[in-house]
Amino acid sequence: MPLVKFNVPRSLPQDRLDGLRNAVHEALVTTSNVPQDDLFHVVHRLEASDFISDPVFPGMARSGEAVIVEITFRMGRTDAQKQALYRELARLAKVKSGFRSEDVMVVLTENTSLDWSFGGGVAHYAQVAPAV
Amino acid sequence: MPLVKFNVPRSLPQDRLDGLRNAVHEALVTTSNVPQDDLFHVVHRLEASDFISDPVFPGMARSGEAVIVEITFRMGRTDAQKQALYRELARLAKVKSGFRSEDVMVVLTENTSLDWSFGGGVAHYAQVAPAV
Amino acid sequence: MPLVKFNVPRSLPQDRLDGLRNAVHEALVTTSNVPQDDLFHVVHRLEASDFISDPVFPGMARSGEAVIVEITFRMGRTDAQKQALYRELARLAKVKSGFRSEDVMVVLTENTSLDWSFGGGVAHYAQVAPAV
Repeated sequence: MPLVKFNVPRSLPQDRLDGLRNAVHEALVTTSNVPQDDLFHVVHRLEASDFISDPVFPGMARSGEAVIVEITFRMGRTDAQKQALYRELARLAKVKSGFRSEDVMVVLTENTSLDWSFGGGVAHYAQVAPAV
Repeated sequence: MPLVKFNVPRSLPQDRLDGLRNAVHEALVTTSNVPQDDLFHVVHRLEASDFISDPVFPGMARSGEAVIVEITFRMGRTDAQKQALYRELARLAKVKSGFRSEDVMVVLTENTSLDWSFGGGVAHYAQVAPAV
Repeated sequence: MPLVKFNVPRSLPQDRLDGLRNAVHEALVTTSNVPQDDLFHVVHRLEASDFISDPVFPGMARSGEAVIVEITFRMGRTDAQKQALYRELARLAKVKSGFRSEDVMVVLTENTSLDWSFGGGVAHYAQVAPAV
């Protein structure tokens, strides 16, 4: 269910991107009750002139490799789960793909169970229990 | 008001994309109280390496033509309307553009009346009745 | 904190885009309590065939320069602040970049304090007061 958008510099090598994608997915699985095969990734490779972040807000030190990961999922994760997600995502992005943790920004958007149709014209979560 | 983003494979032919866009708009009009001339579409054509979906989650059988349609609109649609939207959208995508229904995923995000300015510096829905 | 996405025609000159970006940021700072150095911009330059807006809905007169600005920020802005944001954004887009105000559409999405990690694996707003 999470739909994840990766906003990354066009210069990011493919293997680094793959490592980042794996890090995000593993962090979602281990901290946020996301099934292993529930993976939907969109990558936007952006020119430097089309991807502008303040280099230090709020007390960071971003490099030219900074990325912004947007995750849309159903509401239900607790504050503690979200904090664990950020920690684990930053840790794994470093381990799997060499990212400085200050270069990994994450923005979450929550919607509801009825807001997902995975195909077939069906609202898959209409009849199931909450996500968490 | 709906802002619709079409995440599609770069290989999708233009006429198929046009058919999909028409299907989505007609489904919104007929199921979700969207005016005929309320149409705002953004298309992201993605390389296969930048658009990764699990091929079967949750019990689907996606092909290389799978798309993800993101719709942002004001809250107010009922669960039944959302379910009708998914059904009709999948049906019309098949009829108008030859899409297998399992290749059409839809994700909704809701916001509020005050979250829309269609131009002119004005919040158009500030004084009007709810959408549905 | 705001994450701002600029959906613009590919034909928009760079200096016009820069003026628009400056207009949006200044409007956020002056109307919506956004710190001056809190700037995160993603630009999607779109072919005309990938960026379709109704030319007049709802009572507008859009040109080929029409843009859609998406802003994601924490909930907390009042209706009056959002209305001031739209007004000021349209005014500044004209002053700084020559945009007709009817060509500047804005869509807001709100999330919560726990939905932001600016990097370092930390939920930066977990312990701070609301935004506004």
